[in-house]
Amino acid sequence: MTEIRVGLLGLGTIGTGVARILIEQEELMRRRLGKSVRLVAVADRDLTRDRGLDFSDVRLTDDANEIVRAEDVDLVVELIGGYEPARSFVATALAHGKHVVTANKALVAKHGEDLFPLAAEHGVAMGFEAAVGGGIPCLKALREGCAANAIESVYGILNGTCNFILTKMENEGADYADVLKEAQQLGYAEADPTFDVEGIDTAHKLSILAAMAYGSKIKFDEVFTEGISRITASDIASASELGYRIKLLGIAKPHGVNGEVNAVEMRVHPTLVPADSQLAQVSDSYNAVQVSGDFVEHTMYFGRGAGERPTASAVVADIMDIARVCSSGSGPDGVAHLAPPMGFVDAERRDLATLPVADVECEYYLRLMVQDQPGVIAAVTSILADQRISLEAMSQKERSAANSVPVVMLTHETTEGNLQAAISRIIALPAVEEDVLILRKESKVA
Amino acid sequence: MTEIRVGLLGLGTIGTGVARILIEQEELMRRRLGKSVRLVAVADRDLTRDRGLDFSDVRLTDDANEIVRAEDVDLVVELIGGYEPARSFVATALAHGKHVVTANKALVAKHGEDLFPLAAEHGVAMGFEAAVGGGIPCLKALREGCAANAIESVYGILNGTCNFILTKMENEGADYADVLKEAQQLGYAEADPTFDVEGIDTAHKLSILAAMAYGSKIKFDEVFTEGISRITASDIASASELGYRIKLLGIAKPHGVNGEVNAVEMRVHPTLVPADSQLAQVSDSYNAVQVSGDFVEHTMYFGRGAGERPTASAVVADIMDIARVCSSGSGPDGVAHLAPPMGFVDAERRDLATLPVADVECEYYLRLMVQDQPGVIAAVTSILADQRISLEAMSQKERSAANSVPVVMLTHETTEGNLQAAISRIIALPAVEEDVLILRKESKVA
Repeated sequence: MTEIRVGLLGLGTIGTGVARILIEQEELMRRRLGKSVRLVAVADRDLTRDRGLDFSDVRLTDDANEIVRAEDVDLVVELIGGYEPARSFVATALAHGKHVVTANKALVAKHGEDLFPLAAEHGVAMGFEAAVGGGIPCLKALREGCAANAIESVYGILNGTCNFILTKMENEGADYADVLKEAQQLGYAEADPTFDVEGIDTAHKLSILAAMAYGSKIKFDEVFTEGISRITASDIASASELGYRIKLLGIAKPHGVNGEVNAVEMRVHPTLVPADSQLAQVSDSYNAVQVSGDFVEHTMYFGRGAGERPTASAVVADIMDIARVCSSGSGPDGVAHLAPPMGFVDAERRDLATLPVADVECEYYLRLMVQDQPGVIAAVTSILADQRISLEAMSQKERSAANSVPVVMLTHETTEGNLQAAISRIIALPAVEEDVLILRKESKVA
Repeated sequence: MTEIRVGLLGLGTIGTGVARILIEQEELMRRRLGKSVRLVAVADRDLTRDRGLDFSDVRLTDDANEIVRAEDVDLVVELIGGYEPARSFVATALAHGKHVVTANKALVAKHGEDLFPLAAEHGVAMGFEAAVGGGIPCLKALREGCAANAIESVYGILNGTCNFILTKMENEGADYADVLKEAQQLGYAEADPTFDVEGIDTAHKLSILAAMAYGSKIKFDEVFTEGISRITASDIASASELGYRIKLLGIAKPHGVNGEVNAVEMRVHPTLVPADSQLAQVSDSYNAVQVSGDFVEHTMYFGRGAGERPTASAVVADIMDIARVCSSGSGPDGVAHLAPPMGFVDAERRDLATLPVADVECEYYLRLMVQDQPGVIAAVTSILADQRISLEAMSQKERSAANSVPVVMLTHETTEGNLQAAISRIIALPAVEEDVLILRKESKVA
């Protein structure tokens, strides 16, 4: 019986879940793998708190540095989170010939491009299924299940906090601030929710998906990112009347000629999707990734995007994939049999440009505040016509407290650059306030 | 540059799709794999029909026997369908040391247990992702993505023809026979639709999913199977009023004590699922597989369950997985690095019993035809009470042409045996007709 020995960094929520699987599911995993996965060491700053697990056969330490160098560890699971010291520990583990599995999307999005070559150089694997979509095996589905396809689009509901807030706003007609407060009380949102609600977490995940879909480098810093904090209950109601729901989506699409991709479009923003689409049904804290390919057409992968047990499930799936190709003391040969971490072999990954935001083509939802006087709508629509932006729908809402009234417009497709030019001209109109909300709409999702 | 040489049996719809990917997507596949996949030979009875593909570098033959023995073929793709001669060709290919990929669910369900050992004996792989869920990488998701979980349930919408018919019946209030005729005209249903509409195709697929989920043998013959042909527009409307949609589901659940599975429940039948569930949203010819595990909770995999291009996508995904672990002339070592075909290593697969149908616990939808006279409902409900079956809802529908009226009841959970005993007593009532429709209900789907 061969085995693989695991060292775990971080015994927080997910770390506890991983330890729990490795201990409780040992026999089931052995039946599936034909070999054993054994938790041999755990590092955490707080070793006194009771996690309800029997660690009597496990070496406990508060020194992660010991584990990433330990002779008796074949695979290191990094569940510390954040950029540092996670990056240093992972780099050291790889350099010491240890496989690494992580759930850390920030780490992969920011430092993956430095860590993958390090792993390759030392003949070890790096798994990060849990970094995107929590428990959903969406990276595996994209990388392996859809490998025969040129990917036409990736749409992801990738942040459970935002989806919980938007679902609650929709169900209860409640305003953003109130729902956020409730989400914080329930533990669905952090005390400082910026990372989630401003779309940064989604951008981390999208940058990984996009690079995997198109064989490009991970370019987190180039993702166009807008959060959900400016959306009102009234926007959600307007969208609903028009047949749409609002979801925070991460979106990636390829651009190029003759099937050759030379630029990647990446954006994260609140998005109107048709109310009867599969994506629109993904509610509460659920996540989903929709991958469309030129052969497979639409596929969607749905499940829990966070939480101790679902995320741990994805971490351990990675451990099992790696365990399948190697065991204690095995060399690099087995690892070459795994799908490459980013879905393309290293030499074939390219440094593709990110499509400039101004060139992104989109349909739009516009919410303008205009003074309730004759000729304003005519002036606005004539500017849109002049910019060759055609309207799909328009609705003027009830008068607000002030003298101005909200006007909601849906446009057909135009470029972001063209839309922004139109908006500049529109808010220069004396009867239009500067505060314009621009949401984007995707009609072609499944 | 290593390569893997593919021989293709069957140039029908899916075979043409596979040939198309291998030819058109050659460069993309090479970038993802780091090696080449080359179509070297194709066998079909009809080699004259134009498939719009350039086969100038491919050996065309009408003799499949030549390909399954050919020296220059590493991997045989079987897309003939049906039991024979597909089984013989696959067995011969495996015995000649060739990897096999198939989309043939009937073959895997019926003969998989003979073919897997043959593959193992000759150190080759057998892939069949396309056999379940068409283009959806659902077997990979279950086998590898959810490998850290004890599987709590598998629910599948696995037949596009049935889902198309049920969706159309619901959307148009149309009757089964009319919609079937339309589906046949559109090519969504076969001239003889028995295999699809009576649930046999779904049972093939479910038997594979169940064996994979629980580490048991494939027991297609033991799947309890009912089709959709007795459902009326009025049943769909009644279900809708009660907050449910009707889907043909394949359902697998484990039974046992202390987490040890000792029997597997397998059933295929029209099922009421909550209208707001993710499964209920899967419409038209789409398929979906919902896998729930003790750690990952609910996951769902959605996409096209049939068709040239989606099914070919899954076939080629299998080819690529196998290509990753081997190349021309490689031995059995690489194959051992693949996940085992049925998700558990051979020695750990067990011959688990199928739960007797009488012991299956379910909620029920009952449609009785009763004479419109006093005391009938009282008599029926007192029999149910006597059998300790409690009602969740009941509705009496408009009078039909005859003297009898339909009565619809939803029950809480009871065993199939107990329900059948109750039904026997109920139809013995003089005022109740023998024609009772029993549908089943699953409230716990996501």
